Amino acid sequence: MATNDSREKNSPNRSITASKQKDFSEWYVQVLLKSDFIDYTAVSGCIAFRPSAYFVWEKVRDYVDAKFKEDGIENVYFPTLIPEHLLQKEKEHVEGFTPEVAWVTQTGDTKLEERLAVRPTSEAIMYENLSKWIRSWRDLPMRLNQWNNVLRWEFKHPTPFLRTREFLWNEGHSAFASKEEAEAELPRIMGIYEDALKDTFAIFGIQGRKTQKEKFAGAAASFSFEHLMPDGKAIQGPDFHHDEQRFSKAFEISFTGRDERADYIYQNTYAISSREIGVMVATHSDDKGLVLPPNVAKVQIVIVPIYNDKTREEVVKHAADLEKRLASSARILLDSRDEYSPGWKFNEWELKGVPLRIEIGAREIAERSVTVCTRYNSTKEKVQEESLINGIRERLESIQKEMYNNSKRSILSKVRKVLTYEELKLAVEEGFFAQAPWCGDEGCEDRIKDETGAKATNMPLDSQQDAERKSCVLCSRPAHHIVNFARSH
Amino acid sequence: MATNDSREKNSPNRSITASKQKDFSEWYVQVLLKSDFIDYTAVSGCIAFRPSAYFVWEKVRDYVDAKFKEDGIENVYFPTLIPEHLLQKEKEHVEGFTPEVAWVTQTGDTKLEERLAVRPTSEAIMYENLSKWIRSWRDLPMRLNQWNNVLRWEFKHPTPFLRTREFLWNEGHSAFASKEEAEAELPRIMGIYEDALKDTFAIFGIQGRKTQKEKFAGAAASFSFEHLMPDGKAIQGPDFHHDEQRFSKAFEISFTGRDERADYIYQNTYAISSREIGVMVATHSDDKGLVLPPNVAKVQIVIVPIYNDKTREEVVKHAADLEKRLASSARILLDSRDEYSPGWKFNEWELKGVPLRIEIGAREIAERSVTVCTRYNSTKEKVQEESLINGIRERLESIQKEMYNNSKRSILSKVRKVLTYEELKLAVEEGFFAQAPWCGDEGCEDRIKDETGAKATNMPLDSQQDAERKSCVLCSRPAHHIVNFARSH
Repeated sequence: MATNDSREKNSPNRSITASKQKDFSEWYVQVLLKSDFIDYTAVSGCIAFRPSAYFVWEKVRDYVDAKFKEDGIENVYFPTLIPEHLLQKEKEHVEGFTPEVAWVTQTGDTKLEERLAVRPTSEAIMYENLSKWIRSWRDLPMRLNQWNNVLRWEFKHPTPFLRTREFLWNEGHSAFASKEEAEAELPRIMGIYEDALKDTFAIFGIQGRKTQKEKFAGAAASFSFEHLMPDGKAIQGPDFHHDEQRFSKAFEISFTGRDERADYIYQNTYAISSREIGVMVATHSDDKGLVLPPNVAKVQIVIVPIYNDKTREEVVKHAADLEKRLASSARILLDSRDEYSPGWKFNEWELKGVPLRIEIGAREIAERSVTVCTRYNSTKEKVQEESLINGIRERLESIQKEMYNNSKRSILSKVRKVLTYEELKLAVEEGFFAQAPWCGDEGCEDRIKDETGAKATNMPLDSQQDAERKSCVLCSRPAHHIVNFARSH
Repeated sequence: MATNDSREKNSPNRSITASKQKDFSEWYVQVLLKSDFIDYTAVSGCIAFRPSAYFVWEKVRDYVDAKFKEDGIENVYFPTLIPEHLLQKEKEHVEGFTPEVAWVTQTGDTKLEERLAVRPTSEAIMYENLSKWIRSWRDLPMRLNQWNNVLRWEFKHPTPFLRTREFLWNEGHSAFASKEEAEAELPRIMGIYEDALKDTFAIFGIQGRKTQKEKFAGAAASFSFEHLMPDGKAIQGPDFHHDEQRFSKAFEISFTGRDERADYIYQNTYAISSREIGVMVATHSDDKGLVLPPNVAKVQIVIVPIYNDKTREEVVKHAADLEKRLASSARILLDSRDEYSPGWKFNEWELKGVPLRIEIGAREIAERSVTVCTRYNSTKEKVQEESLINGIRERLESIQKEMYNNSKRSILSKVRKVLTYEELKLAVEEGFFAQAPWCGDEGCEDRIKDETGAKATNMPLDSQQDAERKSCVLCSRPAHHIVNFARSH
């Protein structure tokens, strides 16, 4: 049966040759490509999501979307192109995005009179319409959301998911009649994202407020989840921004209040993006390949029947039976291809990150048992078939939970409280979040970044009381904030 | 309570002032805008889908996507930008699309060395990767799909949904080892689209094969659903294309067969787009505003309590109770706003197309009844409350079915069989599909189009046997096909 292609698939170039510990960047890309999760494309910095990767994104989108809808948020769709004059309405916003904008300047053979930006984010195109849609307190709150694709033409070295020129995301845009109502949305949205990180990607992030220097272009205040990658560099997760009245003044979005007085609306924006897929892959995968959390795995369980010519019929029939019995509880695949050996299949499905593998042969059938191999912790155990079937949902749920707990433990173990600049430097050097008191002066923040390469990732919400009576890690003036400094992607 | 804005909302400019019969174009746009279904944007030819419109699209996407998944189709995501040299690989394809392409020529301040097309469709960017992914018969069939947005910069007068420069769609791309397998996919996909048209939009389309002149740019054969709009012009619905080996030869997508021989793959593509939302609106709506089929209506039922100061508490409480009892079976809204009168609310929800309105007042409560108004046929009936609740799903289902049947009856009544050129001209003039025998010569097709303005919409699958022993409607040579000619959007 060996043809050219099957020999190629069995060749060593299918297995991961780089080590997660020693060469994270090379390992990461090998895992993504060799597991058929993604591919590079003809456009530099833009990837193709193959079925297993897009499935993850669909699960995340559906999860978050259901929670958004429960919370009263409505989905809309706005054009992908934004006329240049609109992008220029909010000063910080345009400065933040213009260097990365992909410009449409021509359609067919016709040169456009005004350039059109392929959306890097949609404030500018949406808020022009909001100013028509919102007239009165009766129209508020108006909480809109889009699931779409955006382009940001970064010129740094692109990395699949983590820094791509096109990515998928949600962009939430809420309008309120008062600052208080706008502020009350923060914990609701951050709560939804926290749950999504846990129940889909099985990853933990440190919640905190961004410094003014690191906030979103145009926002008044930004909040984020921050993750730590295996190479000791931080990466930002989902975020939330209070825009206050910055955009509503720039775009003239005013309303008549119950008191008949006119005021500008208060706005928030928030996003979770396909970047998280990369964080998930980097967090859970290993030197054998991809490791997917059960809740987002396209195939949750693969059954590999083990047989010889004599036992083939009985074993495959039994395996098909087992597949049927599990199919209502899990996304399951029976790999009964004769042209590949069981060993080849073990490697293949490990490489592709399937959470559970069930091995079944004549001996197992006789014992009414199966062998169950768990991908994320490489354990192997013999289980009675009935007990496997009855407990399959709980087994998958507990894998999801354990993977999340591992992520949480791992990140929290990498937060080191420091009080001196020497301690900060050492922590950063060793790939930790250096959690340090800070005076609030951007001069100190800048100097720390220049000298150590570490930026202020965020100011953890639950640690701010620690700033009391402490001194800035750099200048020794009284501290007003606790900041997690780290090198970052 | 009257403020500026509520006066404005009560003003006549909220109601439809054009007639569907007399001025379809003006009526159509008024219905879309005044019902808050869509809005124009700062980009000419691109619309904003407001929540009620985007909800329709989500329902369609979810419906079709579930059927695709059942059938084994997998979702992927490819970049939105396509390098120019890839677009040029298939000759007919590039000729068909280049005049409409929006070109990215610049990113940030940097002029690109090669122009990038914002995808008008994704063959060119996908097939470059397919040629790497497909090596062997084991990799086939590979049936991939994307849900995304595409840009086609048409220069004709844009019309919301029906002719927009950006639209949402699915693009299915399947690869097979043989022509027979590729052909077997046609009825499966057309069946899914047929069901979707019925169960979501409640619209009927005539299935048929496109002529060579009217087929998709690059395809070997195209199939479509054709609708008829209230103005007597046809418009194309979902379509399906056999590409045979045209693209696989251009993009070098070959595989090793079971017999160890190399061959090019056989491909199909297929799509349903947000254009159908416009067809749905045009088909069902009336001079009072939008009419939405229950299955895609964001709000399926609105309850309007009717009360005075004395009865308010009792009536609103009872209405809230009814809302709760219906909430598990339908998407329901209780409009108990004091600042608007019942009459204002009736107009408002009629304008917005809510399928059912329930009116409830003190008298109805005493009788344990409610008044039910059905939007699509403007009927009003008194129903016992318990029977309403028990039968609510069936009631909504039967509305969906009746709306579909109306659409089907209406389109079929507009198909007129013609045998002479005079009959064809008259039928076209009167806004019919002129169903005519045709010799198959593109010269005749061209002359009919030039002289009557009618193009070959498609060749209905179930009428081809009628061509036997008939003569071409134009040249009188033996007919080989039956074609539905019509003027079109």
